[in-house]
Amino acid sequence: MNRKFAERLENLGTETAFAVGAEAAELSAKGEKVYPFHLGDLNIRTPDNIIEAAVEAMKDGKTGYCPNAGIAPLRDALARDVGNARGLVYNQENVSVQTGGKPVIGKFIMSLMDPGDEVLYPNPGYPIYESMINFNGGVAKPYGFIETETGFALDFEGIRQQISSRTKIFIYNNYHNPTSAESDDQEMKELAKFCIENDLYVLSDESYFDIVYEGKGKSIASLPGMQERTVILYTFSKKFAMTGWRLGAAIGPRDIISQISRLNVNDESCTNQFVQWAAVEALTGPQDDPQRILDVLKERRDVAVDILDSIEGITVHRPNSTFYLFPNVTGAMEKLGISDVEEFRKVILDKTGVSFTTRKHFGTPLEGEKEQYVRLAYSGITKEEIKEGLEKMKNFIESTDTCTTV
Amino acid sequence: MNRKFAERLENLGTETAFAVGAEAAELSAKGEKVYPFHLGDLNIRTPDNIIEAAVEAMKDGKTGYCPNAGIAPLRDALARDVGNARGLVYNQENVSVQTGGKPVIGKFIMSLMDPGDEVLYPNPGYPIYESMINFNGGVAKPYGFIETETGFALDFEGIRQQISSRTKIFIYNNYHNPTSAESDDQEMKELAKFCIENDLYVLSDESYFDIVYEGKGKSIASLPGMQERTVILYTFSKKFAMTGWRLGAAIGPRDIISQISRLNVNDESCTNQFVQWAAVEALTGPQDDPQRILDVLKERRDVAVDILDSIEGITVHRPNSTFYLFPNVTGAMEKLGISDVEEFRKVILDKTGVSFTTRKHFGTPLEGEKEQYVRLAYSGITKEEIKEGLEKMKNFIESTDTCTTV
Repeated sequence: MNRKFAERLENLGTETAFAVGAEAAELSAKGEKVYPFHLGDLNIRTPDNIIEAAVEAMKDGKTGYCPNAGIAPLRDALARDVGNARGLVYNQENVSVQTGGKPVIGKFIMSLMDPGDEVLYPNPGYPIYESMINFNGGVAKPYGFIETETGFALDFEGIRQQISSRTKIFIYNNYHNPTSAESDDQEMKELAKFCIENDLYVLSDESYFDIVYEGKGKSIASLPGMQERTVILYTFSKKFAMTGWRLGAAIGPRDIISQISRLNVNDESCTNQFVQWAAVEALTGPQDDPQRILDVLKERRDVAVDILDSIEGITVHRPNSTFYLFPNVTGAMEKLGISDVEEFRKVILDKTGVSFTTRKHFGTPLEGEKEQYVRLAYSGITKEEIKEGLEKMKNFIESTDTCTTV
Repeated sequence: MNRKFAERLENLGTETAFAVGAEAAELSAKGEKVYPFHLGDLNIRTPDNIIEAAVEAMKDGKTGYCPNAGIAPLRDALARDVGNARGLVYNQENVSVQTGGKPVIGKFIMSLMDPGDEVLYPNPGYPIYESMINFNGGVAKPYGFIETETGFALDFEGIRQQISSRTKIFIYNNYHNPTSAESDDQEMKELAKFCIENDLYVLSDESYFDIVYEGKGKSIASLPGMQERTVILYTFSKKFAMTGWRLGAAIGPRDIISQISRLNVNDESCTNQFVQWAAVEALTGPQDDPQRILDVLKERRDVAVDILDSIEGITVHRPNSTFYLFPNVTGAMEKLGISDVEEFRKVILDKTGVSFTTRKHFGTPLEGEKEQYVRLAYSGITKEEIKEGLEKMKNFIESTDTCTTV
């Protein structure tokens, strides 16, 4: 039969970063040494107490259906833990457990955005925001970041240019993937004011809220007037090294959360029951392992930053959060005579085995962008390999000039 | 702020059966004895070899992300197992692993149905079909069943009345929830012919394909011309008592499956990795436990049918599949002077503790429906409790007349 797929699929995006992983795997299969900086997974096993709790729950017969919004003990534990860390009061009716952080994006958008509504979202940013806005008939309005002395800041001028009477949602990813941008108090306050003045709902993607090296994470939901309009995307993936368990939650005003849970009834019934019992242990058990994971990541960050920043034509900040680096490689590309950052990526992969993603995997570059950036994740690679790989990259870039590569 | 939810939520349905569970729980909390015939969960723990495989996978560090469409060994095992049981050849590109069977419904519809397209779906039937059709802007066209000497048959006259040039999809749930309707060869052949003549895509919900007591399950995908237009909804929930693990798959033509997997990239990234490894063991390990589960269910069926069918004003078939009974209670309702089947349900729950759902939990009754039905699930209740509960129900109905209840 002649296929006729639904038209909405034409508006569906993807994560092009997966293709980089496939290229790296191909190279690796050929026997080449690959240094995996491309994917945001952790090469650290889930802490034992969490695994043990899952085993116990399974053996205790917690293998049947459970409530659509999650088991009460986990909703309670999340309300307490997420509330305490943000100075906010939540209870279990503010929590809808999900099969990961990602489902919160689509369900939030489906609950609040009508076709034609505009949504401000970060670009560069996690590509699923744009995909889900477009797929559900919204108008995706990108905003960017400005490089500062110490990192990246929200481009407020860009944000103000994009707002209109049709704008309904602001997607905010503090501790930002891929730039690691972290709002200072002033910036967060200004953003809250902007969201209130324009009566926007906020999806606060707090995937990296707990991957903060000095000090504590801050949430825009904590600012006056914001809790009622903000849904927090929470995930167990990073803090507890539970990426493959697929567990997260939407946390916010109970009327929005109850709509999100209605979508759960229709989409997947509920999230794996014994995984939820394990997560109760993650939140309420000993917290040494999350701290150990942070310590490991911080060490890796410093090794990576020190070498990267020493490479001719590359500058990089030392971010206080996430496990990503977003070096400016404009100079190195010029040195190699390469104008397309994707070509730069491929040359480096081919010549050194260092595999990373680029700015282009995080959205279409905005008008006026001149500098070139790549993203290195240091979550899935050891300190030793970081050193070895980045030194190869340094040697290659510094010993090569236009004539050699062309 | 004044809430303005997305308009699409107005078209979102739910499973009203959950409310019955809540009523039963309330009664139980008051200290009343409740006999749980309302929910399709199993009170049987997942087999040990499957639990052990999950534990081993976790301890082996299979706690990270995995491919969007599922791990290759599970896709392979499913292609082989599902193909062999249906006399069809599938390979891993025909398989997209999902967090349960339910996600296949929405993803199939989103992949193939445009707004305004018509979808034929069973009513009575699993309520999520209608909900997902409406939510995604389709036109839901119900078809019913006709009671026969031995069970229920598709109402082909109704089906033919509902077809139009806008009809694009037929949802078929052989081994049907709630009626246990099972097509004989003739009926399935006639349906296949109808789908081919009208160039329809088929979602074949085969949730109960393996819950067949005599003989083997049959799939419409096996009939000539059908494999290319059929996506099978597969679930681990029933056969392996894995309802709370949330694991299923879409199995069908590779171009449709690849679109469904694109939705996975956007919706949940992937399904829990170690759960998938456990499922490889479920499919390839010893099959004594699935057989034991079937034996237990069959015994329960017989106890339940024998008592129900002996009750004055109730008739029931002895279905060869599923773990549901769909007794005709018209006479019993007349005897009690009750005209609304929901009132009948509440009176029985209140007076005897026997908790079940009714025809109304499976869609709005069609024009011309005169007989009254309720659904009893015998999957989550022991043989002893079935006996005790249904005997109470028998005594209550047979010793009561209109004057007593009014």
